[in-house]
Amino acid sequence: MSQEFIYLDHAAATPVDPRVAEAMQPYLQADFFNPYSPYAPAVAVSHKYEEAKARIAQIIGAQSTEIVITAGATESINLAFASVDGAVVTTAIEHEAVLACARAKEHQIVDVGLSGVVDPEVIKAAINDDTELVSVALANNELGTIQPIRKLSEVVAAERRRRLEKGIDRPIFLHCDASQGASQLDISVARLGVDMLTLNSGKMYGPKQVGLLWHSNEVIVQPMVVGGGQEMGLRSGTENVAGVVGFARALELATKNKKSEVLRLSKLRDGLERKLTEEFPQAEVLGSAKNRLAGHLNIAFAGLDGERLVFALENEDVLVATGSACSANKGKRSHVLSAIGLDPKISDGNIRITLGKLSNEDNIAEAAEKMTKVVAKEFERVGA
Amino acid sequence: MSQEFIYLDHAAATPVDPRVAEAMQPYLQADFFNPYSPYAPAVAVSHKYEEAKARIAQIIGAQSTEIVITAGATESINLAFASVDGAVVTTAIEHEAVLACARAKEHQIVDVGLSGVVDPEVIKAAINDDTELVSVALANNELGTIQPIRKLSEVVAAERRRRLEKGIDRPIFLHCDASQGASQLDISVARLGVDMLTLNSGKMYGPKQVGLLWHSNEVIVQPMVVGGGQEMGLRSGTENVAGVVGFARALELATKNKKSEVLRLSKLRDGLERKLTEEFPQAEVLGSAKNRLAGHLNIAFAGLDGERLVFALENEDVLVATGSACSANKGKRSHVLSAIGLDPKISDGNIRITLGKLSNEDNIAEAAEKMTKVVAKEFERVGA
Repeated sequence: MSQEFIYLDHAAATPVDPRVAEAMQPYLQADFFNPYSPYAPAVAVSHKYEEAKARIAQIIGAQSTEIVITAGATESINLAFASVDGAVVTTAIEHEAVLACARAKEHQIVDVGLSGVVDPEVIKAAINDDTELVSVALANNELGTIQPIRKLSEVVAAERRRRLEKGIDRPIFLHCDASQGASQLDISVARLGVDMLTLNSGKMYGPKQVGLLWHSNEVIVQPMVVGGGQEMGLRSGTENVAGVVGFARALELATKNKKSEVLRLSKLRDGLERKLTEEFPQAEVLGSAKNRLAGHLNIAFAGLDGERLVFALENEDVLVATGSACSANKGKRSHVLSAIGLDPKISDGNIRITLGKLSNEDNIAEAAEKMTKVVAKEFERVGA
Repeated sequence: MSQEFIYLDHAAATPVDPRVAEAMQPYLQADFFNPYSPYAPAVAVSHKYEEAKARIAQIIGAQSTEIVITAGATESINLAFASVDGAVVTTAIEHEAVLACARAKEHQIVDVGLSGVVDPEVIKAAINDDTELVSVALANNELGTIQPIRKLSEVVAAERRRRLEKGIDRPIFLHCDASQGASQLDISVARLGVDMLTLNSGKMYGPKQVGLLWHSNEVIVQPMVVGGGQEMGLRSGTENVAGVVGFARALELATKNKKSEVLRLSKLRDGLERKLTEEFPQAEVLGSAKNRLAGHLNIAFAGLDGERLVFALENEDVLVATGSACSANKGKRSHVLSAIGLDPKISDGNIRITLGKLSNEDNIAEAAEKMTKVVAKEFERVGA
């Protein structure tokens, strides 16, 4: 793949790192046992599963018993929402899974300004006595903006103190979907100050269909899937041993290389951004220039059509996105770009470029050349 | 693995067939794209996913649009139960997932006789005006008994006619968990006459964490996981492309070799059964001798301890089970053997031997020798 195309859509999907695939291999075939079988080879598999969970827990600064393994971020988010009864507060730029879960409950969906950065004061104002959950993503999947989770946790903590003083019994929790940015940002649950954290292996060079919901001891998780009692009764079904071993390895690799990879990606991204904005002064970089994931560049060319750009770039073997990749968004204007109040004339001409492990100096330089050519041609076509 | 141990626990887990692993390989690494991304390589992946679903649908005689891909049988069962409002009728020998789902609703859990075969008349008697779901497994995972699903579907159809005549609006559906036996029995949804069918890839030499719920057009599936709108909105989350491609390949292989494999396994199983029952006349073969999965042999040695037998056999590198492999059953007496009314003195001395692809004449002959030795020694130890 990497030879044929220049892949610049790491926010939509990432390839499994070969070291992750290698770690998973034994559990797909030779060590295929059911972890709950009684004989030693199955018990060994069960231990490998628990070891992998413990390594994941250590990386996020948590206990293994506080982690529920799921089939990915969407299930984790649904599980987080299923575990609260009261109202929820979230933002208009969250992932469709968060918005769909919120809409199924009493909810307040707050606006976010043009920068795409959530304002803790706005969240604070939206919280009332019935609020039981605040859910904000660590980084926005379209804009790449990094959210002030720590500050949001302080808002939630202050509300908790207020309730204690007022004798209000309802708890309040902060859930953070860290699917985007987990391989670039600090995901220590203590430092983030969250009560629930969603992670997605498939967005960080691990296997797809694996994710987790971490929850503090205060949260009483309400299982959605009951049966054999796996995951301490919180998510039944035979354990995904290969998936979790791969997930743990992916997290370890991300953690180990975080600093250097963030530097490398931001340098590459900044070069590409400079080239495009110099070439096209009318281009607008969306989101927050300061609080942004290293590999993220969402850029809009007012007057052009983002979807046309995606296909024109594909003809040049450069793969980028516009909007996020899921069924709900197909053929529709991005709900994120609408929510931050961006003029449709601008947002309709946007493309999302996300760099990652498959990016390097050579292919980014080549992509920059091709993008310049394609965008110039499109501007010519529309006569701008 | 297969060289070190004689694996006789195919009902608990099956290794991924190398041909299945090969089919999955491209989608784990090179073709890692998000199926909902707009560019051609992602669209190609999306087509491969839909093709795989269509092949699965064809094998069970259904439409692709009637299939919801899940993370396995437990999730499928939960989804089936989530899709009905009324009361449920099931049997005391079902899998823990079915029992847990049933207990969360108004329910009637009927008894099953010593043969382990569900009596359609008993199901019929348990159905009342409020019954919306009847759920019976295709084959029992402990006894291997094959259930008369076709006859149960006639009971349900008769009830449907009665309701039509009486003007009772409530629908009634038959759900069949075919996790056990899908690689040996007919799983045409039309011939079974079911309204919902659960399949589990991980029990038929496909990847784990993949399953499906098939549902007829009459059933209005209520999604448990909402978000991006994948699986026609019935189960959100990025599609498990590798998993579904593997599942389709596993089903194809099972279908192609069904007849010859059933013959081969029953011949091997019968030989082993003959050897053990001749050697130990007090041994009792549990379940139905006639209506039983080809590779299944649940045999009890009254006075012995099944768990001791499992470990003694493991010392001889023979892996068998007692009860089923899940958290809920750990260290407890089998709920299946209790439910069929078996004397605990007999059931406590039972082991479940399940043959499969890893079984052959040589290792079954060797296993028979080792079992004979181990059982004789245990009888000697208890002085019987």
